[in-house]
Amino acid sequence: MEKPMHALPPSLRELIAALNGLPGVGPRTAERLALYLVQTNREAAEQLVRRLAKACERLQFCEQCGALTETQPCPVCADPERDQSMICVVEKPVDIPLIERARVYRGLYHVLGGKISPLRGVEPEDLRIAQLEERVRRGGVREVILALPTDVEGDATAHYLAETLGGLGVKLTRLGYGMPAGAELEHTDELTLGRAMEGRAELG
Amino acid sequence: MEKPMHALPPSLRELIAALNGLPGVGPRTAERLALYLVQTNREAAEQLVRRLAKACERLQFCEQCGALTETQPCPVCADPERDQSMICVVEKPVDIPLIERARVYRGLYHVLGGKISPLRGVEPEDLRIAQLEERVRRGGVREVILALPTDVEGDATAHYLAETLGGLGVKLTRLGYGMPAGAELEHTDELTLGRAMEGRAELG
Repeated sequence: MEKPMHALPPSLRELIAALNGLPGVGPRTAERLALYLVQTNREAAEQLVRRLAKACERLQFCEQCGALTETQPCPVCADPERDQSMICVVEKPVDIPLIERARVYRGLYHVLGGKISPLRGVEPEDLRIAQLEERVRRGGVREVILALPTDVEGDATAHYLAETLGGLGVKLTRLGYGMPAGAELEHTDELTLGRAMEGRAELG
Repeated sequence: MEKPMHALPPSLRELIAALNGLPGVGPRTAERLALYLVQTNREAAEQLVRRLAKACERLQFCEQCGALTETQPCPVCADPERDQSMICVVEKPVDIPLIERARVYRGLYHVLGGKISPLRGVEPEDLRIAQLEERVRRGGVREVILALPTDVEGDATAHYLAETLGGLGVKLTRLGYGMPAGAELEHTDELTLGRAMEGRAELG
């Protein structure tokens, strides 16, 4: 009988397998990451263990808006100075700090947790749409702003939300379409240009 | 004074920063990975924490050959049935199971931990070359096989090793160059074809 081959140590094989499952991490990247962590940079590995364990322990979803938060409700929902009559609907928790950085919005948020995508099997029931409807039905909400991606799935989600929230007596708006800041016409696609043309505003 | 903006929770920001430092992981991927782990798949996150902690705790470098191992010395070095007179030199620990799978080599290994690359600041002293020389000087070694990458840096490393080990009375070989298995000529680069031509063998 042939002698057994010598393979990678079990704990290294298991680490590579765990990394390999992550989004955007193929077998080669998983192997490279695992070796980097256990071989080249143990400090980075130990930091990652600590921070990932801490994030898992501390982060929860805000019961009202669905944002990732360490406190319940999240700091935005708990802030009495935010305008309680406005809800800005976003796809992901990370969209919130992007809008906050613009410093023009002082209302509340609602995280859908994705966008409707029949191709990828994401149905309206998979998103936090019922919770949004419930928040609007409870009353006190004047305007719902859809700050969704301007792609096909984002548009489909916006369309579905317009149907769901229509007739509830709330003003429904979306982010303005048009030219991004600092853009040249020659580097702007025709769909964006068309929307910017339609959304043109008077000067002065 | 303006009200403070609401940002991502600290533990999430810290996790993204830790991921962002890893090879091949940019800020966008780090964000996507962090959200996937804490938001979409907590089980994957907890598994990764466990496996990474375990790998860090168990894996060490074999004191003789430099392979990643859970035992000291590693299973190959500890195996009395392996041919102690042959050392196969590889760049990375993961190269060992690749060679083992070919089931033609029954000697020992030596992991360099990289290849000489002045451009990336990797000098001979950064690799386990002195340890290899020491192993050869100790005696009992008949042949050293260089199983290094066939790129410029691999060739430079092989050249340096040939100089270092020359005169120590050991036979120095490298892996054969030529056509890879299952390759068509039209998809084979000219350097490989040239080497295959030089390394041609008689039939029958």
